[in-house]
Amino acid sequence: MSDHLDDLHAIVPAGGAGTRLWPLSRSGHPKFLLDLTGSGRSLIQQTYDRLAPLAASVVVVTGQAHAATVADQLPELDAGDLIAEPSPRDSAAAIGLAAAVIAARYPGAVVGSFAADHVIRDVPAFHAAVREAVVVARAGEIVTIGITPTEPSTAFGYIRPGAPLGLDGAPSAVRVDRFVEKPDAATAAGYLVQGYRWNAGMFVARAEVLLAELADHRPELHEGLIEIAAAWDTPERAVALDTLWPTLEKVAIDYAVAEPAADAGRVAVIPADIGWDDIGDFASLAGLLTPADGADETGNELRLLGSADQVLAQDSSGLVIPRSGRLVAILGLDDVVVIDTPDAVLVTTRARAQEVKSLVAQLQARARLDLL
Amino acid sequence: MSDHLDDLHAIVPAGGAGTRLWPLSRSGHPKFLLDLTGSGRSLIQQTYDRLAPLAASVVVVTGQAHAATVADQLPELDAGDLIAEPSPRDSAAAIGLAAAVIAARYPGAVVGSFAADHVIRDVPAFHAAVREAVVVARAGEIVTIGITPTEPSTAFGYIRPGAPLGLDGAPSAVRVDRFVEKPDAATAAGYLVQGYRWNAGMFVARAEVLLAELADHRPELHEGLIEIAAAWDTPERAVALDTLWPTLEKVAIDYAVAEPAADAGRVAVIPADIGWDDIGDFASLAGLLTPADGADETGNELRLLGSADQVLAQDSSGLVIPRSGRLVAILGLDDVVVIDTPDAVLVTTRARAQEVKSLVAQLQARARLDLL
Repeated sequence: MSDHLDDLHAIVPAGGAGTRLWPLSRSGHPKFLLDLTGSGRSLIQQTYDRLAPLAASVVVVTGQAHAATVADQLPELDAGDLIAEPSPRDSAAAIGLAAAVIAARYPGAVVGSFAADHVIRDVPAFHAAVREAVVVARAGEIVTIGITPTEPSTAFGYIRPGAPLGLDGAPSAVRVDRFVEKPDAATAAGYLVQGYRWNAGMFVARAEVLLAELADHRPELHEGLIEIAAAWDTPERAVALDTLWPTLEKVAIDYAVAEPAADAGRVAVIPADIGWDDIGDFASLAGLLTPADGADETGNELRLLGSADQVLAQDSSGLVIPRSGRLVAILGLDDVVVIDTPDAVLVTTRARAQEVKSLVAQLQARARLDLL
Repeated sequence: MSDHLDDLHAIVPAGGAGTRLWPLSRSGHPKFLLDLTGSGRSLIQQTYDRLAPLAASVVVVTGQAHAATVADQLPELDAGDLIAEPSPRDSAAAIGLAAAVIAARYPGAVVGSFAADHVIRDVPAFHAAVREAVVVARAGEIVTIGITPTEPSTAFGYIRPGAPLGLDGAPSAVRVDRFVEKPDAATAAGYLVQGYRWNAGMFVARAEVLLAELADHRPELHEGLIEIAAAWDTPERAVALDTLWPTLEKVAIDYAVAEPAADAGRVAVIPADIGWDDIGDFASLAGLLTPADGADETGNELRLLGSADQVLAQDSSGLVIPRSGRLVAILGLDDVVVIDTPDAVLVTTRARAQEVKSLVAQLQARARLDLL
């Protein structure tokens, strides 16, 4: 089951600031470039590691500011498989260009788009879901992977599943009735009862099907992408990218493709329980880590990302990330979050972790660009 | 009233680790060398500033490790007025040697001993109390200054006052019935009702009276001190200190002099309300600072020792000391204490401030001498 699929080509959009993970995540080294699980591999490396055994090729799309670091972290990646966006033009342009490049190289290719900054703890279950998704995609569907919710989260969009597709080789596949926006808590609780799934932004489809949807709904964007893709594997790549990229419409692929396709009954979902987490904030990150042994003499649960030698905790619980080489000493605080970096230290609580974003906004207001 | 007293010579014992103020206070730069009030002057400088207008001379006694820094901080101090102890031999030796040196220089001198690491906010009231104490000391008494308690503290010893002395020029002076040890909370509450005073370790007496008490109760110690003092202002100073100092008995001046003298009815007290604080821990330090303006956008009370530019606080209160040049960001924590230094950051609460000492003990157990 771990053989790769000859016609599957993975797309890894690597963007997003991760401001709720400040001061660990910065504009210069955003979330996807960080090792947030203590595995020794960054999130984009782990994403690559998950996809490489499955896909015939992997294309990464990232901002120019991060292209060199991505290339360093993924030495396996060919230069032609790293798309460095000259400016941010949202996900339809990013994923669409990768799909167009892949379509030009591999007629009949199936593409699968998977964000660079998510954690998936059950890789075999993920692989099984992708295999089903590819079967459905070959039949001409746009397929998303619908995460089994573990709580009535208000942080994600949801997918309302419909009738089973009954396709051979894809027993779990069902029709997508519709995508719904991030709900309030009461609505989210209702969604869980009704079997809705989290939308983790994972799409699998034949490249031509994806591009045809784009051509239908965003013809100018489609035309620009095809033109850049035609030049991609030629000496004209840089000129085409520099000239055409700035003219592309900024639109999310959800609006440009997924939602209209779902309304037209052309989207399927593979419900999947794969240990997915988008590490949206430090509370989420703390939940992924196991309690530290030896970091705390009094037996309370302290999660640690880094060396226990750099932490001295007494009668405390929460999350500590020592990343400055200094000692972090914590006394008598429950569910505290201490993130220590060479130029900034954050002290908050797990309950307030979502609001870290507003601290970053205040730094922007103070024009502390050095700390962003 | 601000003229100095020709016969008063001040002694400033500068010792003590201040481990409850770790990581600000270290063995290399203990509490008395730090500016803990944001005045621009360290505690020993402020102590000197308070005494210089009052006393004819000031003698500082400190450990050899700190002598150079003390000399830097107090350029006014003559080399002969800085006693650098070759090893710690407790307060009777330290204060006794200073008194013996002063007695040899200035026959009839009154000495006053005032710790280098205390804060006194009402300097005129302090001066007035010392002036009364000097009047009583000239009459042959050993005089202590009894601090008006502001709470039933269990951190200090207490003084039980007796009958008024009725001396001209010293209307507040009363007999000391006895000194009592640090009490438990209930006992302390009773002491407040009964008018007890805090013992801040301040003594004023004629040098000859102090030395006579020492000669009575600790004749060998007295003999050694007299011998070093005789050599002090000669080329033999270093030899005498190096040879005799290690032989001196280690004993606190409270046990060697104050308590036996009180039992013999030879100690008086000047009750005084002088805004005294020994800055025993970070909770005490926070109480000395005024809430920061502009450090917090949401109006909560945050005390700050350092630059507001280095703090970003939201919905938080407590004490922040940014001393590493880094940004300290605090979100959603009440009565938190964050002390940020170049090699260690401490996060605790005002309520747990006393226990910082036990973190230092853990560092000692871990042999982290670099952080002590």
